[in-house]
Amino acid sequence: MNPAELVEQARAGRQRAVGRLISLVEDESPALREVMAALAPHTGHAHVVGITGAPGVGKSTSTSALVTELRRRGKRVGVLAVDPSSPFSGGALLGDRVRMSEHATDPDVFIRSMAARGHLGGLAWSAPQALRVLDAAGFDVVLVETVGVGQSEVEVAGTADTTVVLLAPGMGDGIQAAKAGILEIGDVYVVNKADREGARTVRRDLRGMLSLAERPEGAWRPPVLMTTANDGEGVPTVADALEEHLAWAEAEGTLRRRRLTRARDEVETIAVTELRKRWGGVSDRGRLDGLAAQVIAGELDPYAAADRLLEGPAS
Amino acid sequence: MNPAELVEQARAGRQRAVGRLISLVEDESPALREVMAALAPHTGHAHVVGITGAPGVGKSTSTSALVTELRRRGKRVGVLAVDPSSPFSGGALLGDRVRMSEHATDPDVFIRSMAARGHLGGLAWSAPQALRVLDAAGFDVVLVETVGVGQSEVEVAGTADTTVVLLAPGMGDGIQAAKAGILEIGDVYVVNKADREGARTVRRDLRGMLSLAERPEGAWRPPVLMTTANDGEGVPTVADALEEHLAWAEAEGTLRRRRLTRARDEVETIAVTELRKRWGGVSDRGRLDGLAAQVIAGELDPYAAADRLLEGPAS
Repeated sequence: MNPAELVEQARAGRQRAVGRLISLVEDESPALREVMAALAPHTGHAHVVGITGAPGVGKSTSTSALVTELRRRGKRVGVLAVDPSSPFSGGALLGDRVRMSEHATDPDVFIRSMAARGHLGGLAWSAPQALRVLDAAGFDVVLVETVGVGQSEVEVAGTADTTVVLLAPGMGDGIQAAKAGILEIGDVYVVNKADREGARTVRRDLRGMLSLAERPEGAWRPPVLMTTANDGEGVPTVADALEEHLAWAEAEGTLRRRRLTRARDEVETIAVTELRKRWGGVSDRGRLDGLAAQVIAGELDPYAAADRLLEGPAS
Repeated sequence: MNPAELVEQARAGRQRAVGRLISLVEDESPALREVMAALAPHTGHAHVVGITGAPGVGKSTSTSALVTELRRRGKRVGVLAVDPSSPFSGGALLGDRVRMSEHATDPDVFIRSMAARGHLGGLAWSAPQALRVLDAAGFDVVLVETVGVGQSEVEVAGTADTTVVLLAPGMGDGIQAAKAGILEIGDVYVVNKADREGARTVRRDLRGMLSLAERPEGAWRPPVLMTTANDGEGVPTVADALEEHLAWAEAEGTLRRRRLTRARDEVETIAVTELRKRWGGVSDRGRLDGLAAQVIAGELDPYAAADRLLEGPAS
């Protein structure tokens, strides 16, 4: 099937075509140029929601519960589970598949795991393009679930239209939360495992820390909600908060600014990747290996080595 | 003071000179070329130890306890606390400073926090150069402590000579550990907070998961140790394991391979950064903003926008 046909079928709601388009992204297919050109006019409608939080807070369970709630509201939902921390293992783990399996037969839910397996620009390169596929395929909401709380996750989650930060009791104290940089990125905070001891303390501490931030008049004040994702308790309040934040962001221009940032990063990443390809020297592994050997021997410093790499093999 | 003098003073053990050299790295100073050239002949002696783990496992406390133990063994110790997840807040938090304060007056311990504040290539660009400063300044061991368990952390920790992965009871189950990609990167595993309930279970589960990995004859088998970093309990066994791993890695050629990888990444990052600088178009924010606006309007796809960006303003 050619790219134009795939795009047409994806837009008609065929899951398989959506899956194949995302595979083209993961495989860094040359056909992507054509695919992206065909998708462009249909993008900009999905509400992109980032979901992040430390391992163990219940991200997969929360995402699954949120999918159930959004389906109840008649939304078509795409889920991208991105795993920047797994350049090695790749793919989704069994646990996630089990948690998500209730949605497996729903034609209006599309779930895909992506690991950082690409060579070009990693997830910074592939995740936005996969998002673009889901957006153009007509999903009303796209949930981007990230593993961990590192820089990549903050980047992925931080450029969503709305970012949900999940916490849970027993996952470390307030300073740890502050260190992880989550106080800056959340539009909606959710304390999951609300039935466990300490959940109220987490909420209280978090509210305390959030209240210290200077926020101008009219700024969005991130709510701190409580859920027990296992049985769906509190999940409708999260769905409500997502809608409220989207409406606010649209009215205030925040939505457009975030989407501009996302598009700018996407274009720049593609441009830099293209630059690296054009400059043969940088991808010349043999030369790079030789220069690296000189660096660890102390014969060259890394700047001098980079200069030689850029001069190319002729020098 | 000129770069050559700074390098000389840093090599003579002056903490202030070391600090100023790392500031040059953080400030992306043009003087770095000269600095790195002067440092190169003196590098390659420090044992670089990465310390990673989820927020809340006690990384700062463990790092501090390890510094104490290494000092007892007569080692000069450098500590780089890198925080890839804090592009916003920057700098170290009070909690860390307090934990590390016992070493503040020790002339043979140098501690520095680095946040991802740089514009060029972030910590991928600055952390290896800061390491290079500490290595050339004659520290026997350099501990690189990272916050979180995302891709950046895995990258930073994964390219150390020896990588320590910290865990603690109550931080999420086994699948979470596997998801975070930590099973692939650790040379030494430490279950901290060993006095807490569940510590033995964490050790047992981790050993179980590690035993599933295929390891060739003669491969390093990562030990799983127990500590209570607060009172230093178990920390000498960690210091022993670090020495054993270094000796093994040196004998097996693993050390050289890892250092080659680190040097290769460093040279490539500098080269790509240089490429981006040379290509004015990519750093032309105004043009990029205009193209991004066309992308979110669906008028251009990101590839076409990247092409225009690379063509430059004349087209």
